[in-house]
Amino acid sequence: MPATHPTGTPTGTASGPATVSPDALGEALAALRHRGPLVQCLTNIVAAPWTANVLLATGAAPAMVDNVHEAGPFAKVADAVLVNLGTPYDGTAAAMSAAAATARETGTPWVLDPVAAGAAGWRTDVAVGLLAHRPTVLRGNASEVLALTGGAGGRGVDATDTPESAASAAADLTAQHGTVVAVSGPVDHLASDRGLVRLANGHEWLTRVTGVGCALGALMAAFSAAVEDPLVAAAGATATLTVAAEDAADASHGPGSFAVALLDALHALEPETVAARAEVR
Amino acid sequence: MPATHPTGTPTGTASGPATVSPDALGEALAALRHRGPLVQCLTNIVAAPWTANVLLATGAAPAMVDNVHEAGPFAKVADAVLVNLGTPYDGTAAAMSAAAATARETGTPWVLDPVAAGAAGWRTDVAVGLLAHRPTVLRGNASEVLALTGGAGGRGVDATDTPESAASAAADLTAQHGTVVAVSGPVDHLASDRGLVRLANGHEWLTRVTGVGCALGALMAAFSAAVEDPLVAAAGATATLTVAAEDAADASHGPGSFAVALLDALHALEPETVAARAEVR
Amino acid sequence: MPATHPTGTPTGTASGPATVSPDALGEALAALRHRGPLVQCLTNIVAAPWTANVLLATGAAPAMVDNVHEAGPFAKVADAVLVNLGTPYDGTAAAMSAAAATARETGTPWVLDPVAAGAAGWRTDVAVGLLAHRPTVLRGNASEVLALTGGAGGRGVDATDTPESAASAAADLTAQHGTVVAVSGPVDHLASDRGLVRLANGHEWLTRVTGVGCALGALMAAFSAAVEDPLVAAAGATATLTVAAEDAADASHGPGSFAVALLDALHALEPETVAARAEVR
Repeated sequence: MPATHPTGTPTGTASGPATVSPDALGEALAALRHRGPLVQCLTNIVAAPWTANVLLATGAAPAMVDNVHEAGPFAKVADAVLVNLGTPYDGTAAAMSAAAATARETGTPWVLDPVAAGAAGWRTDVAVGLLAHRPTVLRGNASEVLALTGGAGGRGVDATDTPESAASAAADLTAQHGTVVAVSGPVDHLASDRGLVRLANGHEWLTRVTGVGCALGALMAAFSAAVEDPLVAAAGATATLTVAAEDAADASHGPGSFAVALLDALHALEPETVAARAEVR
Repeated sequence: MPATHPTGTPTGTASGPATVSPDALGEALAALRHRGPLVQCLTNIVAAPWTANVLLATGAAPAMVDNVHEAGPFAKVADAVLVNLGTPYDGTAAAMSAAAATARETGTPWVLDPVAAGAAGWRTDVAVGLLAHRPTVLRGNASEVLALTGGAGGRGVDATDTPESAASAAADLTAQHGTVVAVSGPVDHLASDRGLVRLANGHEWLTRVTGVGCALGALMAAFSAAVEDPLVAAAGATATLTVAAEDAADASHGPGSFAVALLDALHALEPETVAARAEVR
Repeated sequence: MPATHPTGTPTGTASGPATVSPDALGEALAALRHRGPLVQCLTNIVAAPWTANVLLATGAAPAMVDNVHEAGPFAKVADAVLVNLGTPYDGTAAAMSAAAATARETGTPWVLDPVAAGAAGWRTDVAVGLLAHRPTVLRGNASEVLALTGGAGGRGVDATDTPESAASAAADLTAQHGTVVAVSGPVDHLASDRGLVRLANGHEWLTRVTGVGCALGALMAAFSAAVEDPLVAAAGATATLTVAAEDAADASHGPGSFAVALLDALHALEPETVAARAEVR
């Protein structure tokens, strides 16, 4: 794959569409493999095993340090931090706050995934509090992103809104917090201060396996440790997961075998394949 | 599939065997798919991922909202609630109590799975307290059901008693709490105020995959949101899982591939297949 | 398989290499299957499902009783106890302490897995406190074992040291606490008061599946309930998992299908196969 641009150099303007080259996304995966980043995950009891396996299959190393005694100090050691609100409790929410604060102080890239924000009340407040620590990337579905700007919110982990309908809210969050906002959907929308990138790979079975979105957040953290540009990191993680999903769907018979094949596909995925097949719009 | 009866109309008497037609069980699966119910799961750290994947593969949507701040309010929003005592802690036990109380108040169907009741002391008290909120369905193995009526209890999650030996205890619990009592075993026994239904599908590998019983409880909650009759809901969930298990066993080489194939089989399972193959006794 | 030695009778001297016959390791697996031990697991949110499935596939029964109310009393009922520090919290750490204390008092074999000791501060103290209850087996990677003797520690769950470099620390811990110390790596090192055993089976994909080490600790607990000699138990568990891993690798295409095939292989593994293929050095 000829590297015609330095990795992680998208172009565009804040008001228009940003451009991220498919080549840059392939290079981001190569950089991830080279770095093998240690990703501290403060995540939920449903997605924790799957998230760890997705990171390992792709080439990163998970460390699920999520207690209040260690979460802050460990965020100095980790290469990146994931904070996921799937099943928060008082103790882990305090740990998340400590990890996010430390990550911001030390410049460690970190990703916020406000699972079910809007659908449940307490965690919406927790998510808003975490946003103040300026995550490198905010990843969620449209309903969750809308909820963080005062929108209605969904009915759990499922989006009841489309990424398109959340585009304005995503742009607002980007402007306000300096974060890349990645909104998952049939077409993934990534908002940055340089504009919007859309990615159109994937497969419907991604919605029939629990924790896929959660694992995508973890991958975004891992990629953020490997490339400088958060938009390229978020887009590289998205393209990696969704291109691998297409391979996995070809090799499986339903959501169970698809999840297994997705780990195999992530492990086997070549940067060149991401560059060749990423549908950047 | 000709629908010769309205969905969810079993017949029988409290003292004799109830009749649930295989057709009604197939129709229950069709109703579940049509409804796509949101199932709030307060469950354990072992079965949580598997439970979510079973719900997704079958056609329901999981929401693992199990903290004390949100569990009660969310039970108003959810279509059904699962309370599973696999790994209770002080905080989640309080959340379970709040969710069960709210479910009862608002008429949201809910399922209690008293994992290891009798084998461990504290949770047995928690389970007895939860029973007072009158679950729609109580699901457990024979030892757990016996423990809730003062019997000896098993040695963990494994039953050391047979469903047949728990039939009297199940009938007592049904009479006392108005709940359908589903006792898992080689032949599943479902006790209702209209009598007993037995279902004889399944495969031995179901006992070699963790969380199968826990996931069955979640399916019973999902089915309870889709059909009116709790006995049909519990029987429909049981038939769906155990018929799918037979298909999965044909496509697998051991408990690992069986679990994967079970998700594929649940996703592919047609209501007509349930109606044709459910072994109702 | 002719049983030429009583199960669990290694020979050797404390200063030299111990000898454990491959036959004894096969017999240990047969004893595990015969006993079907109930293993109380106090483990982490990442490895819990996988650990339970590994125990079930191999022939043991898991019981994840990890709350502070029940952990101590249940350790009297269980055949063995696993304490794993992957994601400790205040409540579960107290439960671990109670379970370990009870196990020691009642003579229940128990295994300590000090995940990420050294890499995180609080848990290192918790691990040192647990060591005082004299685990039957201490299982970890080289960095974790070094950390418990005041060494530097790794960067999370990954070892940054080799088993060879931890040999002296392992011998010290064995001498001090009377525990078998099992250090995982490309070649597993097991230190006992009779000397060192090395086992060289396995596959690189074992490092690309989360919780494999955690599950190995659980298997060591299960084997400790089935054979008298802790060194044979630890070696039998190691040989069982790593020989099965070789079979699984032959039947899979990447880390996802490998994990699934590993459960199938554990279920299908014959004691004779362990005896024939265990690479004891």
